[in-house]
Amino acid sequence: MKLVALAGGVGGAKLANGLAQILPPKDLTIVVNTGDDFEHLGLYICPDLDTVCYTLAALANPETGWGRAEETHHALENIEKLGGENWFRLGDKDLATHIERSRRLREGQSLSRITRDLCRAWGVRPVILPMSDDPVRTIVDTLEYGELPFQEYFVQRKCEPKVTGFRFAGIEEAKPAPGVIEAISAADAIVICPSNPWVSINPILAVLQLRSTVHRPPSIVAISPIIGGQTVKGPAAKMFAELGIPPSALAVAEHYKNLLTGFILDHVDATLAPNVEHLNVQTCVTSTLMKTVSDQRQLAEDVLNFIQRLI
Amino acid sequence: MKLVALAGGVGGAKLANGLAQILPPKDLTIVVNTGDDFEHLGLYICPDLDTVCYTLAALANPETGWGRAEETHHALENIEKLGGENWFRLGDKDLATHIERSRRLREGQSLSRITRDLCRAWGVRPVILPMSDDPVRTIVDTLEYGELPFQEYFVQRKCEPKVTGFRFAGIEEAKPAPGVIEAISAADAIVICPSNPWVSINPILAVLQLRSTVHRPPSIVAISPIIGGQTVKGPAAKMFAELGIPPSALAVAEHYKNLLTGFILDHVDATLAPNVEHLNVQTCVTSTLMKTVSDQRQLAEDVLNFIQRLI
Repeated sequence: MKLVALAGGVGGAKLANGLAQILPPKDLTIVVNTGDDFEHLGLYICPDLDTVCYTLAALANPETGWGRAEETHHALENIEKLGGENWFRLGDKDLATHIERSRRLREGQSLSRITRDLCRAWGVRPVILPMSDDPVRTIVDTLEYGELPFQEYFVQRKCEPKVTGFRFAGIEEAKPAPGVIEAISAADAIVICPSNPWVSINPILAVLQLRSTVHRPPSIVAISPIIGGQTVKGPAAKMFAELGIPPSALAVAEHYKNLLTGFILDHVDATLAPNVEHLNVQTCVTSTLMKTVSDQRQLAEDVLNFIQRLI
Repeated sequence: MKLVALAGGVGGAKLANGLAQILPPKDLTIVVNTGDDFEHLGLYICPDLDTVCYTLAALANPETGWGRAEETHHALENIEKLGGENWFRLGDKDLATHIERSRRLREGQSLSRITRDLCRAWGVRPVILPMSDDPVRTIVDTLEYGELPFQEYFVQRKCEPKVTGFRFAGIEEAKPAPGVIEAISAADAIVICPSNPWVSINPILAVLQLRSTVHRPPSIVAISPIIGGQTVKGPAAKMFAELGIPPSALAVAEHYKNLLTGFILDHVDATLAPNVEHLNVQTCVTSTLMKTVSDQRQLAEDVLNFIQRLI
């Protein structure tokens, strides 16, 4: 079975890693959100792409889910002493990625090519693609501050401002990265990982324009990032609430409803399954919380079994 | 007494630091070679400027004389794993300087302004100025490889190629940095530190154009970087030899002869003093080897006493 996984940060990276444990590398392509990429300290930083790559390379910090394991922050501590910005916690090992990528981007290389080379160096075998080589910037519209660049909302202001909407600057001009449409056309299914629907998956879907770019879109299965009305990590539930939608697995299914063939929700949300089925979406109820690599693998197996039932 | 010190890397930094121990900060301006600046890994690196600043900030690595003390290399080790260049040994703390400076240069700030702010953050009190805010690039002409950018000759090829000449690209367009000519005009003397005459001091002198830019150039005193026919560090003696000039303190005095009021040479070269005096240059024989900070201070005191006798 050939799969394309759409992923944002930590949650998406975990499921992608589970899928990578099971599928032969050639049968898995992971398309990653680049809407939260940004220039910082003169370096080009791709938080979601790095989280996915580091996780699949077994280099990620197991406590945070992002950044590198066994990390030091000597450069950042000294940038701070020089009066430079320090709210985005870049570690020394992590800096290597940003320095090397920034240098190559300035030389005119594409993000997808650079990502391929970095993955090769890290021993990551499935294909990881940025959703686009063109810049897309997620802008969060907030009640208190108006529009905020994503990382300013997410890291600097710790998701505290009230969200009133989102905008993806550059989305109209952004083309899917080379290989994305080909992978989707060859795939048996697309897996929408348990990532933030608003700021991780929406930008990818907006770039893909599945209906117009893919002749016959494959089955699409999403895994709810909301369990028992809450997110494991990140502001997805808070965003649903602030946009006037009670956060729940059902709200996620409704968010994606025009796309979905199947939807996976957690045992604690089993009572919502009939409502999801009402949307003409098949459901699978299982354990969706991924605390260990073994959980990642188990959920990935559940996803594959569910897809096999669907196609 | 107001002094301007012209300095390159490690030797120049040591004497500048000695002078900084004695003179009130307002009476010392250090003008530093930028001919060996280069872009590397997408970052703008100023090896001589950083060596002088780190030394005066007491942050320099005491073993190498350059780079930061108590340094780690986590970023560089990871850049290496990604296939990036690793021949220039950038430490993690040192990287902070290059990242912050590169970001500010790209924003359009001048090197002299950035250097001023970095020095302030590091608690360096004398004024340290790059010789110019305009790019000057030292090119080493070699027998084996033709022209080599300076750091490629110096670090990557470890000064092994035979030198046939030098060129300072951009020197015609380069203006002295703001404050340089003012400091020289107000100075009682210029001290040419024991730095490499060919690649550290010559670029500074070429930018300064003392005769045309300064109404009445102050006394100029040089300290020989060559002791007993050898350099303490670096390729100055090797360069003299390859250019057909037997390396000696006398050769250094002859190199600068049209500029010099006085010349300081080591006890081991005392017999050369009369030959230097023949050039119509006054001499001072003392210990010029600086192994400790106390040596730096002692040589600085000898320099000041000598200048007082001259002016």
